[in-house]
Order: sequence, then structure tokens, then C-alpha cells
Amino acid sequence: MTDIPRKNRKPLVDSPWKQSASRPLREHSAEATDAPRDRKPLRPSGELRLYGLNACRAAFANRPQDLRKVYLSEARVADLKPVLAWCVKHRLGYRVVETMDLDKLTGSRHHEGVCFEMLRHPPKGLADLLADLPAAPAPALLIWLDGVGNPHNLGALLRSAAHFDVAGVIVPTSSSLDLSGAAARVAEGGAEFVPMARVDDVHAALQALRAAGFDVVATVPAGAADLYASRLAARSVLVFGAEGEGMSRELIAAATQRLSIPGSGRVESLNIAASAAVLLAEYWRQTRR
Amino acid sequence: MTDIPRKNRKPLVDSPWKQSASRPLREHSAEATDAPRDRKPLRPSGELRLYGLNACRAAFANRPQDLRKVYLSEARVADLKPVLAWCVKHRLGYRVVETMDLDKLTGSRHHEGVCFEMLRHPPKGLADLLADLPAAPAPALLIWLDGVGNPHNLGALLRSAAHFDVAGVIVPTSSSLDLSGAAARVAEGGAEFVPMARVDDVHAALQALRAAGFDVVATVPAGAADLYASRLAARSVLVFGAEGEGMSRELIAAATQRLSIPGSGRVESLNIAASAAVLLAEYWRQTRR
Repeated sequence: MTDIPRKNRKPLVDSPWKQSASRPLREHSAEATDAPRDRKPLRPSGELRLYGLNACRAAFANRPQDLRKVYLSEARVADLKPVLAWCVKHRLGYRVVETMDLDKLTGSRHHEGVCFEMLRHPPKGLADLLADLPAAPAPALLIWLDGVGNPHNLGALLRSAAHFDVAGVIVPTSSSLDLSGAAARVAEGGAEFVPMARVDDVHAALQALRAAGFDVVATVPAGAADLYASRLAARSVLVFGAEGEGMSRELIAAATQRLSIPGSGRVESLNIAASAAVLLAEYWRQTRR
Repeated sequence: MTDIPRKNRKPLVDSPWKQSASRPLREHSAEATDAPRDRKPLRPSGELRLYGLNACRAAFANRPQDLRKVYLSEARVADLKPVLAWCVKHRLGYRVVETMDLDKLTGSRHHEGVCFEMLRHPPKGLADLLADLPAAPAPALLIWLDGVGNPHNLGALLRSAAHFDVAGVIVPTSSSLDLSGAAARVAEGGAEFVPMARVDDVHAALQALRAAGFDVVATVPAGAADLYASRLAARSVLVFGAEGEGMSRELIAAATQRLSIPGSGRVESLNIAASAAVLLAEYWRQTRR
């Protein structure tokens, strides 16, 4: 590991990226002058601190030009050689740090020895998302999340969505849900492949989806039509409600189909990520075989 | 809320259950004399600190006789009236505490205002589990977890298993996996309905399962037979491997069927809880409709 220059091995508290060595690491912000010196400071909302080996690798493979900074443990140097070579070539900062530093940077112990600061995907509206899809009647599957708030659920759902080739995830602007480092880590790279679109006006969004040939399929915990006695349309938006509260009446009323996953009734419902996996798999079974 | 006696409202640090008021709450152990005074101290392994409203309610509904102690927030008093009445009648300790105390007791912020100390289900062997099942050829579904280590994955899996009427979960003794408060909380009550059995000898266990008429179905990330082109036997053990490492060669070699969930290939695999949900749902679709 002698090919890592000494300056990239200094303890993190002495980092030249930091505004002041006395500033605690936890307050280390993307607004500070910790971006490479030839770049403008970034707005915090424009940058995401990714962690987890699969999440970081997928992001780098997908859009290396969005990489801004790399922190890694000594043990990951060999795994991330191509990333470090990119950093050297493009004059991006990288630093070999202690596990404890990564714990602090990511606010997690699940960083797996790597943290990337990357630009976020630019925010997307529903019109952009729909414009990227093949026109009706070509098959396309979308997910609508109505108030899902748990980053682990979002991450698990994005991983399943990538597996089952979902074309996008729609989230109302009223929801605080956004892709976080935790969600991206749990998605194991899946977040790179599933665009998220924000919608302001639920009513207008439903109209646009219908105009684009989509059936709106609401999944409710119990009492609706049996998923396995139902036919999913080739162009479907699967709507999932919040953990706990379920989905809004407007969405339930607007749905073309209301479906439940049959079961024993021993638990009130499935976890939202489990429900989504079951629905996505059933869509695949019905339309892709 | 004036019907909660003053002694059940004292600050937790002054609790008469505690060995010493100067002992920090974090070290508060089931070995200490904090069991009601007419009971013997319990071994820590025999007791589980449950939290989360659905997990606690399901455990109380299923086996109130195993309840040992209740901590709850003021806001949960109305929700848990029947539990408090039981405590009074059976001279069990209960205490209204601050949210911060519950954070410490459970080691989590996801306690939802309630923590129960309960006896664990007595440990079960495979022979006991099989003896409780209807005889072949009656349908029965089991899960085998080979090295799954994440309590959230175990909890999510138990919730899905309860939903889809799984008769039991088999875990090798070599695995450190055991039901924790975190797993039970994520299972939302499902852990009460799905017995877990430990097996020492994998080879003997596989023989016993085959003798009881079970097909061993190994689920692997990719490259095996398409789940949706396959027929699951009415008596199936679905085997899931560890996150990361996958399952042991012995289990893969012993499997009657090796199946993969088809997908885009954009992520290496589904999360184990998502895979399990998809397999359990497909078993339900094939056998229960």
C-alpha cells in the first residue's frame, strides 16, 4: 500500500479540506471549503454522502463524473484502486482514514470502509420521468410511495425495484422522504438505477399517469381483491401507503385496482418493502414470462 | 390517568426493582433482583426485553403468563389498560417512565412507548417442531436460515412468515442468530406465531426433514432454475443463505431444488427478507389458491 501518498494518509482532523482543525468532525459540512479548491462550494442539498461498498461502487460505475470526494479505510484500498486512480487523474480528494472517522462521517457503523461524497441525481419531475419511458402500450412499471418515511424501507424497496426493472419511484413533495446515505446503502447499488420523481399536485399527477396509459394499483393490507386472482396491467403504477397510516383516501379512490396480498391474518400487514417485493415479483411473473 | 398508583410513577432511577440506585440503568440486568420479589431471579437467556406496540401486544395476547415486567410511557397507559390490569391481578411490576428511560431500557428509539420483560419461548429442537406439524402429505412450509445475522432481516422475515403461515424457522446452532427485542419489534407480532428451532447437526436435520416428506429448496441469487417455471412441493423447506456469503455448499448440494428469482441483473441479489417474501408468496399462490 506504499503507493498512497503521505498527504492522503494524514489524520482526518488535520485535513486540508476542513475549514478549521478545531471544528468537530460531526459539523463538517458540504458548505464549507472542503470541496477541492478548483471547484465552487456545493449546496448541501446537492451532495449526498454515500456509504457501503455496493452503493459506492454502483454510483461510481454509473456516474464517475459526479464523484467529489472519497474516504476509505486502509483495508479498502485494494478494492477501490480504479476509484483512487480516477481521483488522481481528476484531482479529486481522497483520504485513507480510520474506521472511527468513517463512523462519524457517515453517522453509521455500516459504511463497510468506504464513504463517497457525490452529487445527487438532479431532481426530476413526473413529466421528465414519463418522457423517458417507452410509449404506451409498451410495458412499464412505476411505484408511488405515499408517505413512506423509513430510509431502510426506502432502501430495501429501491433494491427490489432495481432487481425487477422498475422505471421510477414517485414521491409526493409533501413527504420528507428523500434518498439518504442510509437508504442508498441498504439499496446495495439499486438506487442508481431507479429514478425518483417528486410530484407537487397529486391530482394532476394521477391524470398525467392515466393519460400515459397507466393503471393505478393501490395495495392495501387486507380486504381488497386477492392479488393472485387479479391481472396486473402491462403499464401499472403500484401505490404503497405509509407504514402505520396507510395511503390517502384520494389515492385509494383514484385507483383502478385495489389489491391485497392474501395471508393468514396473523399479522396486520406485511412490511412495505416485503409487500413491494411481492407485488413487483408478481408483475414480473405475469408480464415477463 | 389518576388510577396509576404513585409507586408506579416514581422515577426509574429510584426503582425498588433495582439492586442499587447508583447502578447505571444500562447495566440493569435480568440477573439482578429486579424480578418481583416472590419470584426467583431469571437467567438473562431466559428472558427477552420486547418493545414496540404490536410486538408487545401480540406477546401478551399469546402468552400473558410469560409476562414479567412492564415499562410504559404515560401516553400508552390507555392503550395498555388490559395489560396493567393483568399486572395488578398477578402482582407483576409495571412502571410509567419517561421516553428517555425507554430509550435506555430497549437500547432503541423505536420502542413506541412500551417495553415488556417476558420469558422467551422455551428452546425447541427440530423433532419437537416436526412433531407439531400435520403428517405428510399435508402441506407445510418451513424456512431454514443459514447464517443470516441481521436482526432487522430476521424480524422482517418473521413478519412475512407469520403472514404466510410458515410453520417454523430452522436455525443452525452454529449461527449466533437468536430472537432479539429488535427482531421482535420489526416482526410486529409475527415472532409469536412462528416457532424457531435450533439444529446442531445439519446432516441429521436434513435427513429428518426428508423423512418427514419435505423437499429442500435452496434459493440462490442467480443462475438456478427460474422460480416461476418451477413447482414448489406442498411440503417445502425454503433455505436462505447469509447476507454476503450465501449458503453452505452442503445445503446447496442437499437441495431437491435450486431456484433463483428472475430479474434485471442490475443488483446482485434481493435482500434476504425480500427474497423470502417473494418465495413465501409464490408458495401461497401455488398451493393455497
